[in-house]
Amino acid sequence: MFAVEVRDHIMIAHSLPSATFGPAQGMHGATFTVDAAFLASELDDEGLVVDMGLATEALAAALAPLRYKNLDELPEFAGKFTTTEFLCRHIFDRLADRARSGGLGGSARVRRLRITLHESHVARAWFEGDL
Amino acid sequence: MFAVEVRDHIMIAHSLPSATFGPAQGMHGATFTVDAAFLASELDDEGLVVDMGLATEALAAALAPLRYKNLDELPEFAGKFTTTEFLCRHIFDRLADRARSGGLGGSARVRRLRITLHESHVARAWFEGDL
Amino acid sequence: MFAVEVRDHIMIAHSLPSATFGPAQGMHGATFTVDAAFLASELDDEGLVVDMGLATEALAAALAPLRYKNLDELPEFAGKFTTTEFLCRHIFDRLADRARSGGLGGSARVRRLRITLHESHVARAWFEGDL
Amino acid sequence: MFAVEVRDHIMIAHSLPSATFGPAQGMHGATFTVDAAFLASELDDEGLVVDMGLATEALAAALAPLRYKNLDELPEFAGKFTTTEFLCRHIFDRLADRARSGGLGGSARVRRLRITLHESHVARAWFEGDL
Amino acid sequence: MFAVEVRDHIMIAHSLPSATFGPAQGMHGATFTVDAAFLASELDDEGLVVDMGLATEALAAALAPLRYKNLDELPEFAGKFTTTEFLCRHIFDRLADRARSGGLGGSARVRRLRITLHESHVARAWFEGDL
Amino acid sequence: MFAVEVRDHIMIAHSLPSATFGPAQGMHGATFTVDAAFLASELDDEGLVVDMGLATEALAAALAPLRYKNLDELPEFAGKFTTTEFLCRHIFDRLADRARSGGLGGSARVRRLRITLHESHVARAWFEGDL
Repeated sequence: MFAVEVRDHIMIAHSLPSATFGPAQGMHGATFTVDAAFLASELDDEGLVVDMGLATEALAAALAPLRYKNLDELPEFAGKFTTTEFLCRHIFDRLADRARSGGLGGSARVRRLRITLHESHVARAWFEGDL
Repeated sequence: MFAVEVRDHIMIAHSLPSATFGPAQGMHGATFTVDAAFLASELDDEGLVVDMGLATEALAAALAPLRYKNLDELPEFAGKFTTTEFLCRHIFDRLADRARSGGLGGSARVRRLRITLHESHVARAWFEGDL
Repeated sequence: MFAVEVRDHIMIAHSLPSATFGPAQGMHGATFTVDAAFLASELDDEGLVVDMGLATEALAAALAPLRYKNLDELPEFAGKFTTTEFLCRHIFDRLADRARSGGLGGSARVRRLRITLHESHVARAWFEGDL
Repeated sequence: MFAVEVRDHIMIAHSLPSATFGPAQGMHGATFTVDAAFLASELDDEGLVVDMGLATEALAAALAPLRYKNLDELPEFAGKFTTTEFLCRHIFDRLADRARSGGLGGSARVRRLRITLHESHVARAWFEGDL
Repeated sequence: MFAVEVRDHIMIAHSLPSATFGPAQGMHGATFTVDAAFLASELDDEGLVVDMGLATEALAAALAPLRYKNLDELPEFAGKFTTTEFLCRHIFDRLADRARSGGLGGSARVRRLRITLHESHVARAWFEGDL
Repeated sequence: MFAVEVRDHIMIAHSLPSATFGPAQGMHGATFTVDAAFLASELDDEGLVVDMGLATEALAAALAPLRYKNLDELPEFAGKFTTTEFLCRHIFDRLADRARSGGLGGSARVRRLRITLHESHVARAWFEGDL
C-alpha cells in the first residue's frame, strides 16, 4: 500500500462539558497539527497517489470552517463532545466527501484516508477508514 | 478505526550479553520515549476512545517498575535480552492486563494496543496486538 | 554558559480583539508547548545548574493558573493582548519570582531564564532575560 | 506484530517534467529523511526482529546509489517520474531484495517492510508491503 | 529580549564544485526547512514583536526566488558556493532589506534577525545579525 | 554570527549517588541526542564555517569514549556527578581540544562551540563557550 501525507494546523476554542473531562470542562482551546494521509494500492502514470498540491488544498478546505473558531458556537457540533478523536472523524468525513466528488483530481487512486490530530507533544488521535 | 495515543518516557540501564549486540554487550542505557496507542472501532457517548487522563495514568503505571532501573537486576527479565522490541511487548502485556481488568474506565471501547519505544532519533520499535 | 531546559504544555482559549489579528480576533485557542531554560555560568558541587525535578515543578506552578483556562476571563489579563510573545514574558515573570524566592532550591545558581512557547509546528516565540 | 525502524537520509536533485507538477517541473531537489521499518510476527531467541546494525547497513546500502545524485541522470529512472511515493517503492524493492538474499542476518524473521520518505516538515509518503 | 519565529521550506538543486565537498560536488539537492526569528527588546501596544502573518509573508517573499530552483542557474550565485550557511546569510539579507523598508508593518520593533536552515535531521546552520 | 550544527547520539549507563537525584540515584541510563554547534563570525572562501563532514567526525571522535559505556566505570569521571549539564561541558572540552589542534581543517574559522544534550522529549541541557 502507498500513502502520501500532508500537514496543516488549526487553532480552536471549545469546552467539554462533562465531569469526565475534569479540568477541560470549561472553555479552553487547542492547536491541532493535522496530518491527512491518502492511501492507494497503485500509482498513476505520473507516479502519484495524489497530487500533493491538490491534497494540501483539499485538507485546507476541510479545515477552513474550523480555523480560529469556537467550536461550541458551530451548529454542526451542537450536543456533541468535540474531542480530538471526534474531530479526526469529522475532518475525515469532510475530506472523504471531497475525494468522492473528484476534489483530488481525475487520476486520483485514493481508496483510504487517515486523519491524525496532534493536540500536544504528548497526545494525539487518529481515524482511518475506507472511502 | 479510531486511536488515541499518549506519550511518557523511561531512563534505564541494561546489558545485552551476546556477540550479536557488538558494542552494546556491556552495561549501557537508554532513554525510551514511549507512545501507547489505544485503538477502537467506535467512540463512546462522550466522543472518546478512552479518557486521555486514564490512558496516561495506565501508561505511567505500566512503566513505573522500569523507571530509573537497571533491567539486569529485575527478576522478571532474568535470562532475557531486553531489546527495544522485547520491551515493547513487555509494556504491551502490562497495559493489556490493566485494560482487561477495567483500568481504562467503564466505558472504554479499546480493542487493540500499539506500544512504540523510540530509543534514539534514528531508531525505534513497536508491538501492536489485540486485547 | 550552562543551561538546563524542561518542557510542559498548556491548552487555553483567548481572543485577540484588534483588526491586526485578522481571523484570530474572535474566540479561538492554542496548545502552547512551553520550554523553560535556566542559565548559569557555573555548576554546583553536584554538577547541576538546577535540579530538573525542581525546575519541572517550578514551571508547572507557573503554568497552573493558565491551564485549561479562557485567558479573556482572567483579571490579570484585562485590557491586554495575550499574544504568544506576551505570554512568554508573563510566564518568565512568574518563574523569575519563584526563582528569586528560593523556589529552585538553595544551591541554584540560575542567573537568567528563557521561556519559549511553541504555538504550532510553524510558529513560536520566546523571551529571555536576567533574573 | 513487531517492528523495528531505522532512519537515514539522502540529498538528491531531480525534475518532474509534467504540467501536473507545476513549479516542480524544472530541476530542483530534496532532502529525504528515510525510515525503514522491518516487521515480524515473532522475535528470535535474542529478542530481535532484526539486528539494528544490520538493518541500518541494509538501508544505507539501498540508499547508496541515490546519495548526492541527480536522479534524472540514472539509467534506471529513465522515463519515470521520481516522485516521493515512487522512490518509496524503489527503495522498498532494493531493501526487499537484500532481505530475501539473507542480508538481514540468518535469524531475521522479517516478513514485511515499510519505507517512509519525509520530503519536508509538511509532507511525506510511504510504501508498505510483504517480502 | 523577545523573539517570534516562523517556519517555511524550499526544495532546491545545486552543486558544490570543490574537492572539499566530496560526494556533494555534483548536482544534488536539498529540502531546507527555514526558520526566521525576529528579535526585539520591547513589544508594541498590541503585545507584538511583529505580526506573525506579516512575518510569514516576508519570509515567503524572501524565499520565492529560490523555490524549486537550480541554484547553479541563478545569476546572483555565480561563482559562489551555495552552502547551507551561505544561504542563511543570503536569506537574512533579503529579509533584512524587507524589514528596513517597512515590510514588517509600521509598528514593527524588530532589531535583529536569525535565519536557520535545517538541511536534514542531523545538520543545520544559522546566521544571526542586527538589522 | 554564523553557526553550523551537527547531530549524533550516545547510549550510556550511570548512577547519580546523592539524595538530590531521588529515583535517579541508582544505576540507570540515558540516550543523549547530542548537537554540536560551531560558531564563526565569517565564512571561508568556500562559504563554510566548517566542513560538515569534519564537524561530524570531530563530534563522533569526542563521543567515542562514552559510547555504550557505564560512566561510573570511567576513571575520568571518578568522584563526579555525570549530570546532563556536566556531560555537555565534558564533550565541549574534548571537542574544543580537537578544534584547537586543527581537527576541524585548516580553514576552519570556528571561534565558539555549543554542545546540547537532549536526555528525553521533555529535558535537555547545553554548554556554550569560546574556544
